[in-house]
Amino acid sequence: MRACLDCVPCFIRQALDASRLITDDENKHKEVMTRVLKEVSGFDLNLSPPEFGQIIHRIIRKEFNNPDPYEKLKKLSTQRALSIVDSVKEKIKNSNNSFETAVRFAIAGNIMDFGMKSDWDDKIIMNSFDKALKTSIDSSLVEELYNELSKAKTILVLGDNAGEAVFDKLLIETFPENKKIYYAVKGSPVINDVTLVDAEDAKIHEVAEIISNGADIQGTVLRQCSEEFMSIYNNADVIISKGQGNFETLTNEKAKIYFLLQIKCQVIADFYDYKLGDWKVTTTNRLKESQ
Amino acid sequence: MRACLDCVPCFIRQALDASRLITDDENKHKEVMTRVLKEVSGFDLNLSPPEFGQIIHRIIRKEFNNPDPYEKLKKLSTQRALSIVDSVKEKIKNSNNSFETAVRFAIAGNIMDFGMKSDWDDKIIMNSFDKALKTSIDSSLVEELYNELSKAKTILVLGDNAGEAVFDKLLIETFPENKKIYYAVKGSPVINDVTLVDAEDAKIHEVAEIISNGADIQGTVLRQCSEEFMSIYNNADVIISKGQGNFETLTNEKAKIYFLLQIKCQVIADFYDYKLGDWKVTTTNRLKESQ
Repeated sequence: MRACLDCVPCFIRQALDASRLITDDENKHKEVMTRVLKEVSGFDLNLSPPEFGQIIHRIIRKEFNNPDPYEKLKKLSTQRALSIVDSVKEKIKNSNNSFETAVRFAIAGNIMDFGMKSDWDDKIIMNSFDKALKTSIDSSLVEELYNELSKAKTILVLGDNAGEAVFDKLLIETFPENKKIYYAVKGSPVINDVTLVDAEDAKIHEVAEIISNGADIQGTVLRQCSEEFMSIYNNADVIISKGQGNFETLTNEKAKIYFLLQIKCQVIADFYDYKLGDWKVTTTNRLKESQ
Repeated sequence: MRACLDCVPCFIRQALDASRLITDDENKHKEVMTRVLKEVSGFDLNLSPPEFGQIIHRIIRKEFNNPDPYEKLKKLSTQRALSIVDSVKEKIKNSNNSFETAVRFAIAGNIMDFGMKSDWDDKIIMNSFDKALKTSIDSSLVEELYNELSKAKTILVLGDNAGEAVFDKLLIETFPENKKIYYAVKGSPVINDVTLVDAEDAKIHEVAEIISNGADIQGTVLRQCSEEFMSIYNNADVIISKGQGNFETLTNEKAKIYFLLQIKCQVIADFYDYKLGDWKVTTTNRLKESQ
């Protein structure tokens, strides 16, 4: 996705949110905000939103000498997800279409995103799960995805947020059997994106091989990813991408990618003619057709 | 109100909104944003929100060589207000308590504020008027205000937004008769705040003497106001303050001021333990008691 000036105030707010997660010291918040504003004023405003976020979150981690400011929030997300995982598992098991139900809960889990808002709001989060079975999604594309998975040998799932990964595991459990499945995580912490330790907390290793994409940027920016990751990406028969960050960085790629996400940002909603709060199942091919 | 770091990203967004109101030229938007970020990075982050806004909006007006970027939006607000004024007038006339009904519509009109969002959203705006008779307000304080007005010789109303002034006129029409009434406007344009020309468009001059406060800052920062204004302020028997900007700049003043406003900003809501969307009738005295 191209650069967007609306992202500037949003990332400055993210920097403030992250500072507050780390310390209550208001003087330190001011100091970091001044530093962030100084850096941002020197930015090329043609940077893509993830590149912009990468620089901001690097400053935050460096200023506070804290490699993972969102660690607590990620642990909380995973704990909360694990607290409801059995009831979700039951719903998937008892459903007429376990795969589609699992897709629905995997999209519901995409609400565990602290880019737009750093506070934990249990009501908003649980509401996402409550409406999982009712929200409109493209069922024909879900069926197409299942057919593609049936024919595939290797499958790559691109994780998005910590906590959400718990439901990605349930989705993987509904895949056709005997597949080689990779679950890609960020190479090092950036905001609350899922990393190796978070994926292990979600027990992803029980159903897939967890691989690092080698980068500390939101989404999947291929030119920043490791060779190991790229080899798996290039050879996967099916790629499933979770969340907005992966969506905005991968929509123009050649590979056929299935996107599962909630639309949580007005800029993205406007750009693709979606509505804020939409649940989307789409593919790179579909997006090209509609252009 | 004290400085708040949350206002930093909000004012940067306001700068972008204002730039877009003036031109569609994205390169110019980028140029102005870079300039604004550079200036802001040098700011004392202890500035109060209105002081912060004042500097930002001065930059915008200077960069675009446009003394009144919100002029069109202000005209639209006044036109839309005038399009419904007769039906509101009818409701006030047929009401059991015309004064309270007029207070309600004066608060409803406070929705015409483009600080939080620069787009015209007719649905949100009209919804505010639709719920005018139903929303909870402090009726006993409205009665107290009417009693104070009855005893007063001179009354000062501090205007807030263009468009909203149309309903302030209806409120003034329900004041007890034979009073000297002043309606204060901004000295020169700042965001969509009501200025002399906007107040005249709303026909305020038919019911009150329009006076300038001499400043180009949101709210009423007394140390920036003209001597003429201060003389009227100091001698008014009753002061009625409209909107959030006046509220946040006057809550700590000694004078007894009646505030009529909608709570539209989370920072203010949190600070005073209000809820976003609350309709407030309160006074400086009440606020001191609750501290």
